[in-house]
Amino acid sequence: MSKQALHIVKIGGNIIDAPEALASFLANFASIKGPKLLVHGGGKIATSMAAELGIQSQMIDGRRVTDADSLRIVTMVYAGWINKSIVASLQAQQCNAIGLAGPDGGFVVAKKRNPVPMDYGFVGDIEKVNAQDLAGLITAGFSPVFAPITADSTGQLLNTNADTMAQALAIGLSDYFDVTLTYCFEKQGVLMDPNDDNSVISQINQANFAQLKADGIVSAGMIPKLENALKAIAQGVQIVRLCHADFVSQPDKGTLIQA
Amino acid sequence: MSKQALHIVKIGGNIIDAPEALASFLANFASIKGPKLLVHGGGKIATSMAAELGIQSQMIDGRRVTDADSLRIVTMVYAGWINKSIVASLQAQQCNAIGLAGPDGGFVVAKKRNPVPMDYGFVGDIEKVNAQDLAGLITAGFSPVFAPITADSTGQLLNTNADTMAQALAIGLSDYFDVTLTYCFEKQGVLMDPNDDNSVISQINQANFAQLKADGIVSAGMIPKLENALKAIAQGVQIVRLCHADFVSQPDKGTLIQA
Repeated sequence: MSKQALHIVKIGGNIIDAPEALASFLANFASIKGPKLLVHGGGKIATSMAAELGIQSQMIDGRRVTDADSLRIVTMVYAGWINKSIVASLQAQQCNAIGLAGPDGGFVVAKKRNPVPMDYGFVGDIEKVNAQDLAGLITAGFSPVFAPITADSTGQLLNTNADTMAQALAIGLSDYFDVTLTYCFEKQGVLMDPNDDNSVISQINQANFAQLKADGIVSAGMIPKLENALKAIAQGVQIVRLCHADFVSQPDKGTLIQA
Repeated sequence: MSKQALHIVKIGGNIIDAPEALASFLANFASIKGPKLLVHGGGKIATSMAAELGIQSQMIDGRRVTDADSLRIVTMVYAGWINKSIVASLQAQQCNAIGLAGPDGGFVVAKKRNPVPMDYGFVGDIEKVNAQDLAGLITAGFSPVFAPITADSTGQLLNTNADTMAQALAIGLSDYFDVTLTYCFEKQGVLMDPNDDNSVISQINQANFAQLKADGIVSAGMIPKLENALKAIAQGVQIVRLCHADFVSQPDKGTLIQA
């Protein structure tokens, strides 16, 4: 028996930092019919606020090193300001959003990342998704909006990668729904030719991914994203989609990764 | 037919600003059996953070005037840092907390306060509680933890008094539960003699409140609290209780206001 469709969408800092792009995205997201869930990243507000407070943001390999002060800032900005602003805007558009972070309802339990070989500070790797209770909330008619903040089992808050959070939620919820996981980004999809926006590869699966890699068509930056997408598919997610935020409510746009 | 009991508890800044008192309170709150809901105020973190960012907090008659910068700060601090810290701590103690603000689930809809005769800025007066959906969440086993931030129907976030929020939630939920609304404060209860902590008035109702006022026993500061409590009783709340935070899980402690 086929399950009900669930659309999980992840947006990143590029949209959050652009008020008009965010408003346009939220209108499109609100127009998606049926069960849906949004995961948002952080954007530059946390970094600029930390700077104003004299807290220096340290980055290693593009990841924020989260000390106690930075943890407080990202929790405030991501789970407070950004999350509630998005929820209030969606509610005003008749989307029954409910803003959450990992500790709420025990939905996402993480563990502080091992400080060896590299200490990222208060960064959490996801251990468990309480998908049953979260599925109940979605079935009751709520559209969860997740900030990428988690906690461990002792109650320690942790900063968590939003892409990873979206993937973990998608895998967990695939026991209850036919999940399409859409990552919104600046491009129209995975491109055959990086200089041609019309060269979107519409379908990727395990077989043609190997070929695309062998032919040197997919870029180095795209390979881990596609590998993660294929892992999500292997773990029960129906479709992973990479598309421009403008097309979030048009399910055939972008690159679809499927089994 | 009697409804299920629901304990709604409000804590203020004095507890939030004291880490040991907060930890002790949360352990007691987690130990309350059955359905429960927490409303928390803000404390001094917002004020000190605003100061660090060079934003001046203006107060009129003990109420914060909320300009756009202050709104951003209180939303971050109340709905972000304080709310998620409390939720993570409760989850670590097997209390299935879920952190919320007014816009989440459309649970609390407010309206920006009329700027005449006094402009308080982005301050919201509560217009509607969506008690049915919130009751469903509670019945499903969640313990909501509310930050005193609301939004209006256009999606504008607003700062809201936590006492008022607790009262509105208690009145709304009294259609679905037998509600006890507990306000935690520094004293043991309403005192006959302000210098004697053992002089707690155990019961107040409309009749003896008139007498206590006439005799000059209740203080000027306590009169509006008790009047609000009696209003909540008139609108369906079973018991309003004023007690010390240490006794939140002992239902016979403090002053009980009843019909």
